[in-house]
Amino acid sequence: MEKISEGKTKEVFLLDNDHVLLRFKDSVTAGDGAKTDVIEGKGILNAQTSALIFRLLEREGIETHYVGMKDERTIIAKRLTMVPVEVVLRNFATGSIVKRLPISEDEVFDPPIVEFFLKDDARHDPLLNYHHMRHLKLMNEVEAKEIEEVMIKVNEVLRAIVVRLGLKLYDFKLEFGRRDGRLIVGDEITLDSMRVRDPNTGRIMDKDLYRKGYPLDQVKASYEEFLEKLRSVA
Amino acid sequence: MEKISEGKTKEVFLLDNDHVLLRFKDSVTAGDGAKTDVIEGKGILNAQTSALIFRLLEREGIETHYVGMKDERTIIAKRLTMVPVEVVLRNFATGSIVKRLPISEDEVFDPPIVEFFLKDDARHDPLLNYHHMRHLKLMNEVEAKEIEEVMIKVNEVLRAIVVRLGLKLYDFKLEFGRRDGRLIVGDEITLDSMRVRDPNTGRIMDKDLYRKGYPLDQVKASYEEFLEKLRSVA
Repeated sequence: MEKISEGKTKEVFLLDNDHVLLRFKDSVTAGDGAKTDVIEGKGILNAQTSALIFRLLEREGIETHYVGMKDERTIIAKRLTMVPVEVVLRNFATGSIVKRLPISEDEVFDPPIVEFFLKDDARHDPLLNYHHMRHLKLMNEVEAKEIEEVMIKVNEVLRAIVVRLGLKLYDFKLEFGRRDGRLIVGDEITLDSMRVRDPNTGRIMDKDLYRKGYPLDQVKASYEEFLEKLRSVA
Repeated sequence: MEKISEGKTKEVFLLDNDHVLLRFKDSVTAGDGAKTDVIEGKGILNAQTSALIFRLLEREGIETHYVGMKDERTIIAKRLTMVPVEVVLRNFATGSIVKRLPISEDEVFDPPIVEFFLKDDARHDPLLNYHHMRHLKLMNEVEAKEIEEVMIKVNEVLRAIVVRLGLKLYDFKLEFGRRDGRLIVGDEITLDSMRVRDPNTGRIMDKDLYRKGYPLDQVKASYEEFLEKLRSVA
């Protein structure tokens, strides 16, 4: 099967004219790829987590690229023309926004803040506004607004799940792709792309564990625990 | 008279409850204040340039804080509650946007790109989107859209003047303040806050001369020449 692209954590193969396979690797990376490691089995955990969440979103009427599973680490997905933009929604402040703006750790964003970043490791994923996205032919303002509405809907679904797990959803990142003129949710939704913490103890469950230098087996244990919890409520 | 604030290039005095004096200093700064010098007479040139352009904008129906001159380096202005945001409009690419995004020097922005930056030297004036401005209580999205429309109008007026001088307007920066619930143009419009070049030779007329390390007398001569040209067409 033809490999059509490979990212830091996934390989994409062409299945047929309309479908691709997303194979989740065991790699974990941070700092625009500056730090990288292998956690055996992480690819399986992330493929399973992603699939489960995509199915939940579809059930709530949010269109995603998810079709089904090929094997335990491989998702069958609709073939999209991906927009090289990361869309981030933030409910609580942590990470880059706290360094960039006069905003304190844990500050509440109500309504949530939505941000668009260009996928460009060499430029450290710069923030974009609607004008930049129009000029760079990424998307027009109407599409950007539509994506913001999808982000809000996804947030409602994700937040509800995470709350049922007794956890707190800080933020998450989605990527979108075009298909028949529409923009739909692509890529993945995993602990690599969202931040989840225990509201009482502050315990981190997501890739921040890796960013902050926790042992790899602790990172893996947290991903496993989260997937188990997800399965118990989904 | 009570000095109510002092910036890198201007002092602000309270004239009466509704008016302030803006006294232009002879200082010139770059790199968020990292580089600074004195150019004797620059304050006069910038006060005169600013006043002349504010009068042209008012003549075209664009509301500014400009009321009149107190002396050759001091503008009498309506008292505003300033929003600590720099609004930039770009017709052609140069400066920070070329470093930040995959955009080439001299690239044409048609329509122009408008950007909002937080005035925060310590954080190097970070880019803001509508969500950030709402959360930081700087302005809501309706106000941001209104400001973008004012930027477009100001651009039309400024571009027409600059073209009549045989020059090319790359970009300019405005700051806005509130008065009776409206947002109006405040601060200054000078060669410190806009980029103007000769379209044929590429000769720089504005503060980029200083940023790029040209001798101070050459910077001053360019500011003088630009003001003279402006006076000849205004």
